[in-house]
Amino acid sequence: MSSSSNTAGTEPLVDIESIRRAAEEIRGIAVRTPLVESPWPELWLKPETLQPVGAFKIRGAVTAVSRLDPELRAKGILAHSSGNHAQAVAYAARRFGVDAHIVIPDNAPQRKIDATRALGATVELVPVEERFSRPAELAAETGKAMIPPFDHPDVIAGQGTIGLEIAEDAPDVDVVLVPVSGGGLISGIAAAIAALLPNAKVIGVEPALAGDAAESFRTGVHQKWAPQDTARTIADGLRTFTVGELPWRHIQAQVSDIITVTEEEIAEATRRLMLQARLLAEPSGAVTTAAFLFHRDQLPPGRTVAVVSGGNIDPAVLRAILDGPAHV
Amino acid sequence: MSSSSNTAGTEPLVDIESIRRAAEEIRGIAVRTPLVESPWPELWLKPETLQPVGAFKIRGAVTAVSRLDPELRAKGILAHSSGNHAQAVAYAARRFGVDAHIVIPDNAPQRKIDATRALGATVELVPVEERFSRPAELAAETGKAMIPPFDHPDVIAGQGTIGLEIAEDAPDVDVVLVPVSGGGLISGIAAAIAALLPNAKVIGVEPALAGDAAESFRTGVHQKWAPQDTARTIADGLRTFTVGELPWRHIQAQVSDIITVTEEEIAEATRRLMLQARLLAEPSGAVTTAAFLFHRDQLPPGRTVAVVSGGNIDPAVLRAILDGPAHV
Repeated sequence: MSSSSNTAGTEPLVDIESIRRAAEEIRGIAVRTPLVESPWPELWLKPETLQPVGAFKIRGAVTAVSRLDPELRAKGILAHSSGNHAQAVAYAARRFGVDAHIVIPDNAPQRKIDATRALGATVELVPVEERFSRPAELAAETGKAMIPPFDHPDVIAGQGTIGLEIAEDAPDVDVVLVPVSGGGLISGIAAAIAALLPNAKVIGVEPALAGDAAESFRTGVHQKWAPQDTARTIADGLRTFTVGELPWRHIQAQVSDIITVTEEEIAEATRRLMLQARLLAEPSGAVTTAAFLFHRDQLPPGRTVAVVSGGNIDPAVLRAILDGPAHV
Repeated sequence: MSSSSNTAGTEPLVDIESIRRAAEEIRGIAVRTPLVESPWPELWLKPETLQPVGAFKIRGAVTAVSRLDPELRAKGILAHSSGNHAQAVAYAARRFGVDAHIVIPDNAPQRKIDATRALGATVELVPVEERFSRPAELAAETGKAMIPPFDHPDVIAGQGTIGLEIAEDAPDVDVVLVPVSGGGLISGIAAAIAALLPNAKVIGVEPALAGDAAESFRTGVHQKWAPQDTARTIADGLRTFTVGELPWRHIQAQVSDIITVTEEEIAEATRRLMLQARLLAEPSGAVTTAAFLFHRDQLPPGRTVAVVSGGNIDPAVLRAILDGPAHV
């Protein structure tokens, strides 16, 4: 990782040069995903479901791990996550031949715990209230580097490679729709699009039940929601209850709007992606399609790209969604 | 299409120059699909499920339509198919701004008929016994060009672009697994791999219930099965009861083996692709993964690519497969 300190409010926004470097750093590890035509006129899909570990998170994790000082990296790396970031860091560590120690709250789905272990990481389960303190303690004790899930310029640069690819593949794009959770993904994409396609608009999408970023954007004040509130959404990748500091500054500077979608709309979009677009998306990855299908009146017109951020859907959820709206 | 006549036994095999030209002809219409890592060591997947119309067929159809003499093409084009080829030709015609007239047997699934009409084609339903005679009659009456589903050098060159992309993305590949039906797909891929990676082996995979090509390969004699026999497989894209003449010559010259998989193996591979690899494949597209998972002892060792040829799965079949082996 870059040696610049991450002091809120003073760190510069991620620039296009850092994103271009990230594209080199992830080459051969992350998939260079294509844009695919959707069944809906004017909508193209960016299927990050194809990535190793099934989500865009691999881009930021590999970028951050590749930028660590090699001596520091050789000590092994730390991360905390209950979701796709855990698997992404474990995968990146394995690719660089170093150990990963991942702290996961003990209420995380067993499937995700198993998948992280299967990638060779040491998993430490902690009570949910220790999910931030325990990793900090470990970092202090071991001197190992921590790979944060979103609030870091190298992670943001890695996610920004998606924006770089969209600009290459669709230079005439008008609107880019991006899921918002901690804000790393939309920050990187907005940084790339602002630099390369300044007339295109980047718009965030959140579940209404985890609408902290939309409220922050509307009020101009960085909001935090209660975790028990954001936990209500089916989109388990978007339950983060506030965006990071550095992402918040990117959002204020480079994002045109953040809109929200309902749980029913998320389930229906997941279903249509599967049955009509032949893409297996997790609900968090389907929020952007939900915005296009059900809230186009809130979006600028024109050629639109929806980032489908991941495909790690629980089989029981998949079955319920396939059975139709009444079963979700 | 090239003006060379298509006389069985004399037409030369498709060469790499024709495949390279096809790659230019389909650019911006077909998706340049990535190779994606599977959850199974040594297996990579080529997801043709991402194509417009959900299958590789778009590559051959666009190549063939683009090679028609423009004056002939302007009259409109003809095709016959009960499956993905119908939609691919309809899609290609629309992209070239010409009419498509597609003859479909009246026992084809309503979903496929609707999808072909939705692409703007004129669909003519005929009794199944007229599915070859009626298109020939139309061609004679109207002078329109017929785009055949597999037995034509331009169609084979288009499908061969998959082999070109595999050679670019995985120059160290040892084994390429390809579904076999009429043989156009495997012919094109084998032509590309033979030219670019002569040490790699191209191996065909068929349902045992539609194993005409495997039997042809084993006996060295071009076999035809009864359509009511090949119709038994769940892999509805692989029910063609014999490979074409030109494909048969490619198979004899450039394919290392053809193996078969059972219906249970196809269903289980479709299920694992969905739940473990996050890819929505139709059963015909899953046969190659079935070969890797259940018949690796019949395959050469090493780095393997499975072509996942399409993703047009019926929702009822999808639900049955998701519910597990007992329900298929």
